Amino acid sequence: MATPLLGQDRLDHAGLERLIEHILAGGVHGLFILGSTGEAPSLSCRLRCELIERTCEQVSGRVPVLVGITDASFGDAVAMAEHAADSGAAAVVHAGPYYFPIAQAELAATTANLAAALPLPLFLYNMPSHTKVNFDPDTVRRLLEVPNIVGVKDSSGQLVYFKKLLHVAAARPDFAVLIGPEELLAEAIFMGAHGGVTGGANLDPALYVSLYEAARAGELARARELSAGVLRISTTIYAAGKYWSGYLQGIKAALAAMGICEDILAEPFQPFGPAEKALIEKYVRELGWLQGVPLRA
Amino acid sequence: MATPLLGQDRLDHAGLERLIEHILAGGVHGLFILGSTGEAPSLSCRLRCELIERTCEQVSGRVPVLVGITDASFGDAVAMAEHAADSGAAAVVHAGPYYFPIAQAELAATTANLAAALPLPLFLYNMPSHTKVNFDPDTVRRLLEVPNIVGVKDSSGQLVYFKKLLHVAAARPDFAVLIGPEELLAEAIFMGAHGGVTGGANLDPALYVSLYEAARAGELARARELSAGVLRISTTIYAAGKYWSGYLQGIKAALAAMGICEDILAEPFQPFGPAEKALIEKYVRELGWLQGVPLRA
Amino acid sequence: MATPLLGQDRLDHAGLERLIEHILAGGVHGLFILGSTGEAPSLSCRLRCELIERTCEQVSGRVPVLVGITDASFGDAVAMAEHAADSGAAAVVHAGPYYFPIAQAELAATTANLAAALPLPLFLYNMPSHTKVNFDPDTVRRLLEVPNIVGVKDSSGQLVYFKKLLHVAAARPDFAVLIGPEELLAEAIFMGAHGGVTGGANLDPALYVSLYEAARAGELARARELSAGVLRISTTIYAAGKYWSGYLQGIKAALAAMGICEDILAEPFQPFGPAEKALIEKYVRELGWLQGVPLRA
Amino acid sequence: MATPLLGQDRLDHAGLERLIEHILAGGVHGLFILGSTGEAPSLSCRLRCELIERTCEQVSGRVPVLVGITDASFGDAVAMAEHAADSGAAAVVHAGPYYFPIAQAELAATTANLAAALPLPLFLYNMPSHTKVNFDPDTVRRLLEVPNIVGVKDSSGQLVYFKKLLHVAAARPDFAVLIGPEELLAEAIFMGAHGGVTGGANLDPALYVSLYEAARAGELARARELSAGVLRISTTIYAAGKYWSGYLQGIKAALAAMGICEDILAEPFQPFGPAEKALIEKYVRELGWLQGVPLRA
Repeated sequence: MATPLLGQDRLDHAGLERLIEHILAGGVHGLFILGSTGEAPSLSCRLRCELIERTCEQVSGRVPVLVGITDASFGDAVAMAEHAADSGAAAVVHAGPYYFPIAQAELAATTANLAAALPLPLFLYNMPSHTKVNFDPDTVRRLLEVPNIVGVKDSSGQLVYFKKLLHVAAARPDFAVLIGPEELLAEAIFMGAHGGVTGGANLDPALYVSLYEAARAGELARARELSAGVLRISTTIYAAGKYWSGYLQGIKAALAAMGICEDILAEPFQPFGPAEKALIEKYVRELGWLQGVPLRA
Repeated sequence: MATPLLGQDRLDHAGLERLIEHILAGGVHGLFILGSTGEAPSLSCRLRCELIERTCEQVSGRVPVLVGITDASFGDAVAMAEHAADSGAAAVVHAGPYYFPIAQAELAATTANLAAALPLPLFLYNMPSHTKVNFDPDTVRRLLEVPNIVGVKDSSGQLVYFKKLLHVAAARPDFAVLIGPEELLAEAIFMGAHGGVTGGANLDPALYVSLYEAARAGELARARELSAGVLRISTTIYAAGKYWSGYLQGIKAALAAMGICEDILAEPFQPFGPAEKALIEKYVRELGWLQGVPLRA
Repeated sequence: MATPLLGQDRLDHAGLERLIEHILAGGVHGLFILGSTGEAPSLSCRLRCELIERTCEQVSGRVPVLVGITDASFGDAVAMAEHAADSGAAAVVHAGPYYFPIAQAELAATTANLAAALPLPLFLYNMPSHTKVNFDPDTVRRLLEVPNIVGVKDSSGQLVYFKKLLHVAAARPDFAVLIGPEELLAEAIFMGAHGGVTGGANLDPALYVSLYEAARAGELARARELSAGVLRISTTIYAAGKYWSGYLQGIKAALAAMGICEDILAEPFQPFGPAEKALIEKYVRELGWLQGVPLRA
Repeated sequence: MATPLLGQDRLDHAGLERLIEHILAGGVHGLFILGSTGEAPSLSCRLRCELIERTCEQVSGRVPVLVGITDASFGDAVAMAEHAADSGAAAVVHAGPYYFPIAQAELAATTANLAAALPLPLFLYNMPSHTKVNFDPDTVRRLLEVPNIVGVKDSSGQLVYFKKLLHVAAARPDFAVLIGPEELLAEAIFMGAHGGVTGGANLDPALYVSLYEAARAGELARARELSAGVLRISTTIYAAGKYWSGYLQGIKAALAAMGICEDILAEPFQPFGPAEKALIEKYVRELGWLQGVPLRA
């Protein structure tokens, strides 16, 4: 979930309410806040805590809320998890420490220590392009022995790696393997993945839910058709900017065009300028999202 | 400066006092806390604030205190800077945002925004191996226009880049260019650098001060001799571990061997095991540090 | 196809004959020689020419032969292509220049120049882990305008990128998009890929042919089952070594265990030692390959 | 030395003669052909052989000629070395295999094998930005035991690494440690390096010779002044292009402006367009090179 903002350190309560209701209406099976799409590392600890509380309150048990606690500081991550537990979240998600270069043995040890200190079940979040480190399949194998580590989300985009994760995780049937890049949701499900975490579900949640269901049902033709819709978002909304941040700018600009929340981004990023905004508005119109996003059967 | 700890979220007050006095006795011209050697990104916001206060109190104006405020969150970095200003620090240091991939134009913009929000002068800290981004010479050129950005510390180890920084910074005579890797202190000074930030000064501060002075005086032979001493530390104390963290483990183990503080590291890292500890003790003995580090003329 | 050797600059003619017949018996639709699995960049120009001749002779038109001409030198690549044309090859394959860092505009220009100088149709080969450069989707889009560039093989393992290639290539229906990592063959076919280039087909060609056919036919369950067989090879034969080269060592050791050719590798690599060899023999036995590889229906 | 060309596979004999005489007139102590500045990996084997012969003939023993034999193929590298020996070259230079990812143990083994197969002494050439692999100090330490490995040229730009090379190489007094980036020539000499390999010596050889001599003599002020001249070349001639290739384009365009040879580049690169050419001509004029490069005392 994106994080609606009114200013650098000001949460947009009304926007948050609209965004949550928009996403839940699409039929999602859970809500993951404070991930990369949620700009979590850019937000102050205070604002992150406020978001956790408000989101849990608004969702009010309709779906499980997963809370990203990724933080370079172990202590601050644990504190955030405690806040999540108090607020009623179902689980927490951590991408590993991301400042210091870290070896696999060290990653395994500190992640086990983290899990032991947490009041909630932990999902690993593999995001090597941002953290500079992969949770190697052998590291995940070792971490399977920690009972309250309950799954992994992989955003590497490397499906050979992902397949090896599935292979390793087969040893613990309760361990969930989720795919990050939404463009690969169908393929991941075909491989045996348990689900996906899809930033595009901020915009068109029903599309991703339908794709998930088609893939689960083995409906290849329908999955291919819905995947084309996902790629269309990916090659328009996410591709309007020049830099990596174009992904975040695109989502926020589209949410603004749909009337859900402002397009304000947390530093170090800025909203799109007028040209890109106009482009996003055009895309939103073409995608048929202006009059509300269609719910797919 | 390293950060003496008694536990994961417990600052070692007595160790901190000993360490500060040890370093100041070596004749250093300033104290930089909460950098990479200080494990800053691993520490909780609370502990970082405590360290700032205690250090400023202990130093009590004898040398300027520079405070690392590097944080993925803009808001939390500004808050830390305010705390530093209230505590009497002289300046702050920021390595740039380090989670999201960021383009040079974005880095320049957010750094200018940061500087505008800070109550203290700002040093840039170029640390691409950890932050995934370089402050390109052209970015530094643009940031020279921001008056309260007063210098840069470069830890890239790329001296061609460093030379270009010096070239660019010549346009603003009050702008300080400092070298990160202590093994290159003499060469950097010969090139025209204004100083260095040297982790080894936790252990043998007078060595680095003497080297700085020899290099400033153009005493090539003496600089070469003292540089050999720096390389000796680098190829023993910093090289006892297998991973990048061996640098941090080595410094803390040496400080422990010298009776200054415990060898406790903040997560995600662990102290050396017995074999490496014994090796460090041997090195410390051979370097003549057991009976107190010699002060060089 | 792997390259059977009797020594550093000595082709194994009998082994080559056995290997070609073994692979063709598995029902493959084409033969790609002098790729990474063929250790092409390690072989002398002379030996590469010899291999091209012998292979074309032995195959004798039963399937098309594709010849890797990847070379840091443009001139030597063209010369190799001329030799391939004279020998009766169907097409050539080039991964782009791989010594100098190269920009996308430069890659597009030099590849168009190369295609213009070639006597045979050209397949692009995306292999960024080895060449340090990706054929970006926009570069491929530009190269679609060159008629004798007829396809691309992508070994990046990045399926989002691969999906974008498919999207771009849809504009030219005669342009083939092939997947490199064999572990992703089924998923790539489901996405719309035209085929795969699979190093494991040196060992068990029928497995990959069957998987291709199941995926083409949309038989999800059978594709999943056969994919498990592919992953079994990937996590045994390819995983016995410590380094990247373990992939090449594993294939050659397995071919030796099957009696097809020696396990000699071209420098810079060496064959497996006794321990890894024994492991590979065990795997080969367990995979049922000792008595000849089974042909799947 | 740059490689003067009349066309893609055509050596410029007259230009080569002029260039060699221009460089030797500057007082250089040796000539290194077929390095990165010489575009060696882009040249056909045939043209490389022709260049070796012609150069050795023209130099005719006035200074030692070092020949780059870097090639992804071990066999072709040895053949090139034999040609160099027959032509009268003094030594060969190899950067290691550069297509396959290679581990340090493998790099050490294959380099020792290469040295054993060579008819001439071998210099290692550390160029990790192009080859994807570093000769780690420990690997160099092992290779010191091979008597006909006689030195190393380091182009990493990482002076901490370079300092460790010097430290390791001190064990063999006949082993030469040379610096690659010309901007660091003085600093490297101060550290104890034996010399430098400087692409800019194609343009203004006497500048680099003078700098070398000033640094050897410990003349800090003069070294700093001459270093400023080097940086001036680096920030003008080498900085006129957008990509890495701008370095090669700049050197060739400057040689053309000076009337020494054409600005033709081997594929995959193209000469500068009119705008950059005009800029280079302006720089050449400002550097005072139009009327012949001044010889420094």
